[in-house]
Amino acid sequence: MKIEFKTAMHRLMEADDVLILTHMSPDGDTLGGAFALLLGLRQAGKRAKVLCADGVPEMYRFLYVEPDADFAEKYIVSVDVADRSLLGKTVEESYGDRVDLAIDHHGTNRLFAKESYVEPDAASACEIVYLLLLSMNVKITKDIADRLYTGVSTDTGCFRYSNVTPRTFRIAADLMERGADAAGINVKMLETKKPGFLQLEQLVLQGMELYQDGHICVLTITRDMLARTGCKDDELDPIVALSRQIEGVCIGITLKEKEDGTWKVSVRTHEGADASRLCAAFGGGGHKRAAGCSFSCSRDEAVQALLTSAASFLPCPER
Amino acid sequence: MKIEFKTAMHRLMEADDVLILTHMSPDGDTLGGAFALLLGLRQAGKRAKVLCADGVPEMYRFLYVEPDADFAEKYIVSVDVADRSLLGKTVEESYGDRVDLAIDHHGTNRLFAKESYVEPDAASACEIVYLLLLSMNVKITKDIADRLYTGVSTDTGCFRYSNVTPRTFRIAADLMERGADAAGINVKMLETKKPGFLQLEQLVLQGMELYQDGHICVLTITRDMLARTGCKDDELDPIVALSRQIEGVCIGITLKEKEDGTWKVSVRTHEGADASRLCAAFGGGGHKRAAGCSFSCSRDEAVQALLTSAASFLPCPER
Repeated sequence: MKIEFKTAMHRLMEADDVLILTHMSPDGDTLGGAFALLLGLRQAGKRAKVLCADGVPEMYRFLYVEPDADFAEKYIVSVDVADRSLLGKTVEESYGDRVDLAIDHHGTNRLFAKESYVEPDAASACEIVYLLLLSMNVKITKDIADRLYTGVSTDTGCFRYSNVTPRTFRIAADLMERGADAAGINVKMLETKKPGFLQLEQLVLQGMELYQDGHICVLTITRDMLARTGCKDDELDPIVALSRQIEGVCIGITLKEKEDGTWKVSVRTHEGADASRLCAAFGGGGHKRAAGCSFSCSRDEAVQALLTSAASFLPCPER
Repeated sequence: MKIEFKTAMHRLMEADDVLILTHMSPDGDTLGGAFALLLGLRQAGKRAKVLCADGVPEMYRFLYVEPDADFAEKYIVSVDVADRSLLGKTVEESYGDRVDLAIDHHGTNRLFAKESYVEPDAASACEIVYLLLLSMNVKITKDIADRLYTGVSTDTGCFRYSNVTPRTFRIAADLMERGADAAGINVKMLETKKPGFLQLEQLVLQGMELYQDGHICVLTITRDMLARTGCKDDELDPIVALSRQIEGVCIGITLKEKEDGTWKVSVRTHEGADASRLCAAFGGGGHKRAAGCSFSCSRDEAVQALLTSAASFLPCPER
């Protein structure tokens, strides 16, 4: 059931012994929002802990906060999770049907939780967590501000994307004033490229395919490429972003081979092509400009299916 | 002579028949600020025109505004110009000693104008132009907002760099509310890569040199590389940015061969190394994290001199 902002705020104020869940393959927004919420709830005198099916990747370790001494959860909140399947297998099995409150900014949220507060116009889940904490009279400390800024910055490509609103900028201003180390976080998140990553970028670009007069770009990242360059699954976002940056491209499709041989697909689009609708046709979802889905067939079959669907969105308006 | 904000505002309000000068090798900030100022002055009933020694590059054509019917200038303003030599040869010869007001955010401004309003803490010259126009009661129209946003965004690497302050974010919020097409401008300025540019990036990375345990990165862009990839001098900013993005690098140095065989050098640093001081030793200048200078000796001699000077800033603090 969808609930209003005020109801969500009251639920959090009444809750105690809170388990906070993130989505699998975690990013800066789900982790930043979850750990900021943990710190906010703790400041309000509650016990809280965060659970992520895939743990906290190395590059996001600075967001990590020790949980409160072990306790049995009485209230379960998810942050930035659009569907129970995105909790990841182990977490879904234990908690998939027990989430009390989902805090999310995906218009495609499947309302799997008992109550859901979804704000599709928020550029990041952290924007919503910020507003909730403020309304709960939580003091936005530097530790909270760093975590929220990380989500706000990473989910907007550091304020590049069309999901940014004036509110996003104003929240970023406030987080900086409360001590968020904006420049330091940006360097860590966006401005540091490992030599191995640059090699991977080369390999991927050598295999770049353009279709439909260059309006669709397909990039492929194989396990072999990752092994040769020492890159990990959680370091591939800049390549996904690159798929849409090639001049003339309207729909960027990146296929990432998983360890079990299936393909995780990330779609990035410019105005005119709805990534969320494109991916929904294959059981996935997300946002208008950024969405994802999965395939267990061969790469070529997946590409064929994606191209057929993607072509229906063309031509995109001239920019 | 340095003047206060209010004095600068009064000078602009009293002025008429205004010639606005940008720096050579123009970027989004100098052009965005100059054309926004033109529109603001025109709105206030004055005549104005913009002059740039190198013209307006293709990628910035959307900033261009037709000048008012030809008139003899009575007041000359420069925007984002730290020294008269940066006006470019032809413009310097005509106007180098005649600039009435310099509006700038370079701490290294040489105060070449009769009066200078310099705000080194402003992330962009456009931030200052915005505040001046507001104080003059100019209505920030969509056309003005687009131009100012372009400068604010490009001079901060789209809000990535350490020059961003809460005020920068608040100004961006206001410009969006006044109609600035933030996402569209970002796509044009930052999110579009020509295939030729990706090739150039490859060539440059193949020649990457690392020194001092990988703390100094040197990238070289030759005329030959530009010819082979079809890239132009005004498209190289992302490569300059890349010089500082390699993991472990504290000082990124990019040498760009000019048509006359001299070398234009761009320096980008992380905390601990002052790019402005480094470049000042070679007659250049700029900001703490981003500065430039020139050499007419051979590339290897220039690299040797730069490395010796750069080494004195090491080690940079751990990030």
